[in-house]
Amino acid sequence: MTERLDFILMADSKPLPSLDWDPVAAETLLRDVFGVVVDEVIWKGTSASEKVCEWKEPEELKQLLDLELRSQGESKEQILERCQAVIRYSVKTCHPRFFNQLFSGLDPHALAGRIVTESLNTSQYTYEIAPVFVLMEEEVLKKLRALVGWSSGDGVFCPGGSVSNMYAVNLARYQRFPDCKQKGLRALPPLALFTTKECHYSINKGAAFLGLGTDSVRVVKADERGKMIPEDLERQISLAEAEGAVPFLVSATSGTTVLGAFDPLEAIADVCQRRGLWLHVDAAWGGSVLLSQTHRHLLDGIQRADSVAWNPHKLLAAGLQCSALLLRDTTNLLKRCHGSQASYLFQQDKFYDVALDTGDKVVQCGRRVDCLKLWLMWKAQGGQGLERRVNQAFALARYLAEEMKKREGFELVMEPEFVNVCFWFVPPSLRGKQESLDYSERLAKVAPVLKERMVKEGSMMIGYQPHGTRGNFFRLIVANPALTQADMDFLLDELERLGQDL
Amino acid sequence: MTERLDFILMADSKPLPSLDWDPVAAETLLRDVFGVVVDEVIWKGTSASEKVCEWKEPEELKQLLDLELRSQGESKEQILERCQAVIRYSVKTCHPRFFNQLFSGLDPHALAGRIVTESLNTSQYTYEIAPVFVLMEEEVLKKLRALVGWSSGDGVFCPGGSVSNMYAVNLARYQRFPDCKQKGLRALPPLALFTTKECHYSINKGAAFLGLGTDSVRVVKADERGKMIPEDLERQISLAEAEGAVPFLVSATSGTTVLGAFDPLEAIADVCQRRGLWLHVDAAWGGSVLLSQTHRHLLDGIQRADSVAWNPHKLLAAGLQCSALLLRDTTNLLKRCHGSQASYLFQQDKFYDVALDTGDKVVQCGRRVDCLKLWLMWKAQGGQGLERRVNQAFALARYLAEEMKKREGFELVMEPEFVNVCFWFVPPSLRGKQESLDYSERLAKVAPVLKERMVKEGSMMIGYQPHGTRGNFFRLIVANPALTQADMDFLLDELERLGQDL
Repeated sequence: MTERLDFILMADSKPLPSLDWDPVAAETLLRDVFGVVVDEVIWKGTSASEKVCEWKEPEELKQLLDLELRSQGESKEQILERCQAVIRYSVKTCHPRFFNQLFSGLDPHALAGRIVTESLNTSQYTYEIAPVFVLMEEEVLKKLRALVGWSSGDGVFCPGGSVSNMYAVNLARYQRFPDCKQKGLRALPPLALFTTKECHYSINKGAAFLGLGTDSVRVVKADERGKMIPEDLERQISLAEAEGAVPFLVSATSGTTVLGAFDPLEAIADVCQRRGLWLHVDAAWGGSVLLSQTHRHLLDGIQRADSVAWNPHKLLAAGLQCSALLLRDTTNLLKRCHGSQASYLFQQDKFYDVALDTGDKVVQCGRRVDCLKLWLMWKAQGGQGLERRVNQAFALARYLAEEMKKREGFELVMEPEFVNVCFWFVPPSLRGKQESLDYSERLAKVAPVLKERMVKEGSMMIGYQPHGTRGNFFRLIVANPALTQADMDFLLDELERLGQDL
Repeated sequence: MTERLDFILMADSKPLPSLDWDPVAAETLLRDVFGVVVDEVIWKGTSASEKVCEWKEPEELKQLLDLELRSQGESKEQILERCQAVIRYSVKTCHPRFFNQLFSGLDPHALAGRIVTESLNTSQYTYEIAPVFVLMEEEVLKKLRALVGWSSGDGVFCPGGSVSNMYAVNLARYQRFPDCKQKGLRALPPLALFTTKECHYSINKGAAFLGLGTDSVRVVKADERGKMIPEDLERQISLAEAEGAVPFLVSATSGTTVLGAFDPLEAIADVCQRRGLWLHVDAAWGGSVLLSQTHRHLLDGIQRADSVAWNPHKLLAAGLQCSALLLRDTTNLLKRCHGSQASYLFQQDKFYDVALDTGDKVVQCGRRVDCLKLWLMWKAQGGQGLERRVNQAFALARYLAEEMKKREGFELVMEPEFVNVCFWFVPPSLRGKQESLDYSERLAKVAPVLKERMVKEGSMMIGYQPHGTRGNFFRLIVANPALTQADMDFLLDELERLGQDL
């Protein structure tokens, strides 16, 4: 009780001790930290002569970082050292030898946009506190929709492609069964949605999260290249109906995660049209191909979709996260489906047009600004510059595949049609042994060993995985806009070097 | 076809045109943009002598910003001008006169952390590509859990408190009915969850999104201060059961959005314990009070919760978004409920302990790094520094309330017990007219008018809303750590000035 009394007394006796905001100290700290970023990330992090990461075992890393949070604060010098350590032991995803993920590389304009966003630190939900970004998001989404082939529509930036996909499923079921919002799934017949096993795992996660259950996801067959077989889609729909379920959505994928496959959208759209199903296209990975006149045919038919998920943080290097859900709808479906009209945020007696408040389009409340980084990069590069990047990534992936054919130790899983290059490294001891009984088993053990070696040396990073009946193979992603043929040559040489004794 | 042939030819004929990564140009651009941020945000944005925002009508703002995305790129000079314009017309949420939201102010250490995070641009899902941040998130969550009162448990950073709340609901239903993940809600009896109408609107949004339907949210009565009435909770549970529903979760709120009320957690925990219900505490707003020895009694009983949502981006000014979901569970419930074991990301034959891969704890795939900003700020300020901030915010809110009592034109909605100060400004023409029939109606029109004036002048920003039977009142949030009593005095003077003719 004494403490509470003290507090009240303190409030009554001026002046309260000031916690002093010191802009000089703030500027100095930030300039110093920014200097560390320039040296360690912009220069060293993008330099092929530096490591992708200084690898440490978890226990050792814990000691090196001294993570514990204490009562006492630390000096500026200590804070700078901490920033240096954080960067030193982190993976430089902008490094020209980081091929591990669907994002890679550093666009300085996009980073500039992210720094501005972080410094303004606002939420996207009302025009009141995000006037610039409300208008900018609308413009950026309009541009992305135009590339899909829509002159009107709706959309919103989501915290990642998984959430974009979930939104599509939720919107589709709400459109079909608006009662669901209030009464829940129990008021509905059993639902069925359709995708292939090559789809992103967020479709399954979403089905569970949204209360549909993973059983509601019907798996459509894919061909050997990972593309959905439209005839099987038709069969699965009929089968689901025969089992008493109501089909409501097909999720096609433009750019699958492992193989980089593009589902045949025209044929799938035909089926959806015939059956009256919502067509969602998960183009989180492949959407950026729409920027390329040369390659956008891979997504022919996307204009017939009802919704599209597209992550410019992947191939366009806009920075995590920049994930658009695009809708053909012009009936305010997003707000009707997700809205709850919170009276403290979306007052209707505001002095501006409250239709500009976008907060009720989403199931989040506070929402980060994800449009500026893409907008600024686009302004700087122009659509042409971004198209060049996409074309370059395709060309380098093609170059890499052709080079692999010239070397003894590489076996392509398939010809790449996108920038996923899937291959086995066949070490000397396995060459010419394709006929032996344990070949596949032994080959599957190669990628994990090479991965460990490359990570511990810090020379590069490439992901691997098993896939269907295929044992572990590397899936290398060509996305970093700074890549050159020399980087492609290096990675082939380096795999040979790392695997020469296997 | 010509273009596609060109592409193939290009790939075969070395060398491909390089898109050249130029670190000098990148550094120059970023240094210049950073300079703009320092001048316009760090200095002007936090200066009381500058405007909170240069207000423009939407159509005029569109013209000023020239938002259109074109084919041609722009020069560095143009890009810098664009950054300046973006900042000029944006709301400075770090401004000492921005009282509009549950976040405000600028912590330079947290911003430094955000700049490092953005430059490293990695995803939190595997140890492989986020070694530092996997360990750091664990440490930060451990610290937050310790403040809740737990020596063990689990947790994860989510893209906002709304998603944290949804996770809690999903986890509670999965724990009770694990079949739900696969079979969906149709396999379950009708469910019921309990909260007050003072709860955050994400509970309703979540119920709809998760397929439960908003009808499954049972509204428990709150007292006049906005606190849940435990006796009514008990009644509502019995009523739901009598109607054939299965109660499974109570969502209590620690720091409601409008009134800043704290539900009585001990009494609610008693009910949950008796009835076997999951207790979720939405402490998105009030969680940071746990740092204060003086005030943490407001959350007494929180250690009995099953889950807690806590947003350090609010009162602690860590920066959007920093939202933790904390769990008492030690059975890997998060991974069991949300996991899907994607084989391309969470390979089990990795060379390190795959339990460090946190990606399957969430329904997202890629996940931003949200721990560094909080960790770095904590290292710099120490727990003591953060506690001082919380205490200061309470003390300034108390000071403000006391000052309002001394002035004629202010009427408190209630005594604040947190840092939400809810009040009416009573303009000269309405003073002493409390008995007239249209008093409430006329008073409700005051806040929107004052809001328009303050925003157009750029002098400050305070939110307002109707609430229950109460007409529009201001809800002012004292959170910015840079605030002083002088800022409190200013806002009272300014309201009097803006409203003198009403």
